[in-house]
Formats: sequence, structure tokens, C-alpha cells
Amino acid sequence: MVNILHRVGVASTSADVVYEALTTLEGLSGWWASDTSGDTGVGEVIGFHFGPGGIDMKVVELRPSERVLWEVVDGPEEWIGTEVVFDLRQDGDDTIVLFAHRGWKEPVEFMHHCSTKWGVFLMSLKSLLETGKGAPDPRDVKIDNWN
Amino acid sequence: MVNILHRVGVASTSADVVYEALTTLEGLSGWWASDTSGDTGVGEVIGFHFGPGGIDMKVVELRPSERVLWEVVDGPEEWIGTEVVFDLRQDGDDTIVLFAHRGWKEPVEFMHHCSTKWGVFLMSLKSLLETGKGAPDPRDVKIDNWN
Repeated sequence: MVNILHRVGVASTSADVVYEALTTLEGLSGWWASDTSGDTGVGEVIGFHFGPGGIDMKVVELRPSERVLWEVVDGPEEWIGTEVVFDLRQDGDDTIVLFAHRGWKEPVEFMHHCSTKWGVFLMSLKSLLETGKGAPDPRDVKIDNWN
Repeated sequence: MVNILHRVGVASTSADVVYEALTTLEGLSGWWASDTSGDTGVGEVIGFHFGPGGIDMKVVELRPSERVLWEVVDGPEEWIGTEVVFDLRQDGDDTIVLFAHRGWKEPVEFMHHCSTKWGVFLMSLKSLLETGKGAPDPRDVKIDNWN
């Protein structure tokens, strides 16, 4: 099993504000996929729609202002069964986001792509909360020929 | 051992141009550290200077237009002995860069930071070659309270 890891800091933002951007459709559609649907409570499934494809995330764990954990229940084959987790920690006026997309079977080329792309989307989350403007799909920053 | 992985595509750029940006002081200082010194041949050491600290990379392998492999010989404790590799592959008019920073002992919080930061610097490499303007240290994109 191999994992994608990231760390971003959201300046002058409390952990509860970051948590809200990870647990509401309005928040999620502001930094990851503009077209986001479903329910965000524990046990529910959130659908993230990207052009021709999409990803369904089952919400496995929610700890207010501390942790959001999803399991991928539909999407790219390599993603199914993997977990995405956001751990939040307030540090002075900032909030640190520790991110992991874990449980990849193999470090395939697509995993390299997804690692860079998650970094770009986490920078979009940071930007949304610091400036009011994120860059969710389809206005996301393009990194390569896979998008 | 755990690894940082990334993938970026440099549009309308041949692999030899990307290779040059990874194997000359001028190229490296255009996207990673403005203050870069040393020699870039196999067996030589390149010094990358970041404010108070720095990283010394020994050039282990060079395959023109295909691969650049460095070993970290000085720098942050967690980096020493790890390897950084860039594999290049031309794809039509573009060049795909597969990146790995491998051999981390543990997935520590600093590794999460470095993963995101490498993504930002690879986007700087892409930007340098596509637009003529990179964002090397100290003009790099800040991601968190560690920079």
C-alpha cells in the first residue's frame, strides 16, 4: 500500500472554518468540484462530478474541527476502496491541514498525477478560505495532459 | 521506505529542453532555488541554497533527455540518503515529467510538507518552460507556516 501525502496551512483561519469547507456541499464545490451533490453526514455519499467521470465518497468519520475521512466507493478503478483523510490542527491563527489519500495498491503513473493534482486542489482550498476564491474543476489548474 | 510522487506535463516542450532545465545551474535556478551553485556532471555536487538552510545533491545518474537522479548528501536530516529522480518522456509535443523523492524512512509531517512543496516547484518548472517565468525560492509559492 502506498499513500499520497500533503500539508497546507490556511492563514488566519480557524479549524472550524476549514472543517466547514470539507463538510458542506457549498464548501466542497468552492475548491474541488463545482458540481458536487449528495449528503455530507456520516454514512452518506457525496458525489463529485468531473466532466465525463466522477468520484463517490462515503463519509466514514467526522470529528468537528479535527478530522474528515472518506472512503472511495465509486470512481477510477485505482481509487476504489482507498481512503481520503483530512486532519486539521489549529496553530495560532492558522489551521494546518494534513492530507492523505491512502491505500493505493501500486505507485502507478496515475498515482503520480493524482498526487500533484491533490496538491493543486489543496492550494485551491487554501485560496478559497484566504481570498474567497478557489479554483475548483472545471476552473482548476491544469498540470499535465491528463488534466 | 515511503516516497513522494508527482507527474507534470510541460506543453509544447521537447524532453531535451526539460533535461537542460534539470542539468544546468541556469535552468535549476529558474525554477527551484535562485541561489544554486556547484557542478552538474555525474559525481559532482550541486548546492541549492534556501535562506538559512540548503540542500546538497550528488548527481548519480544522467541519461540525456530521459533521466536525472540525485542523492541527497547534505540538508534536512530526513532528506539525507534519500534520492530524487526525474524521468522524462516525450508525448507528442509535450514532455511528461515523472518525479519521485524516494527513500524517506517515515511518513513524518515534514514529508507531507515536502510533497506539496515539490508539487509547487514542479509547477514552477512547467511555468518556466512554458512561459519563461518560474517561481524559484525566494519567490516561491508559500504553502504553509513552514514556507
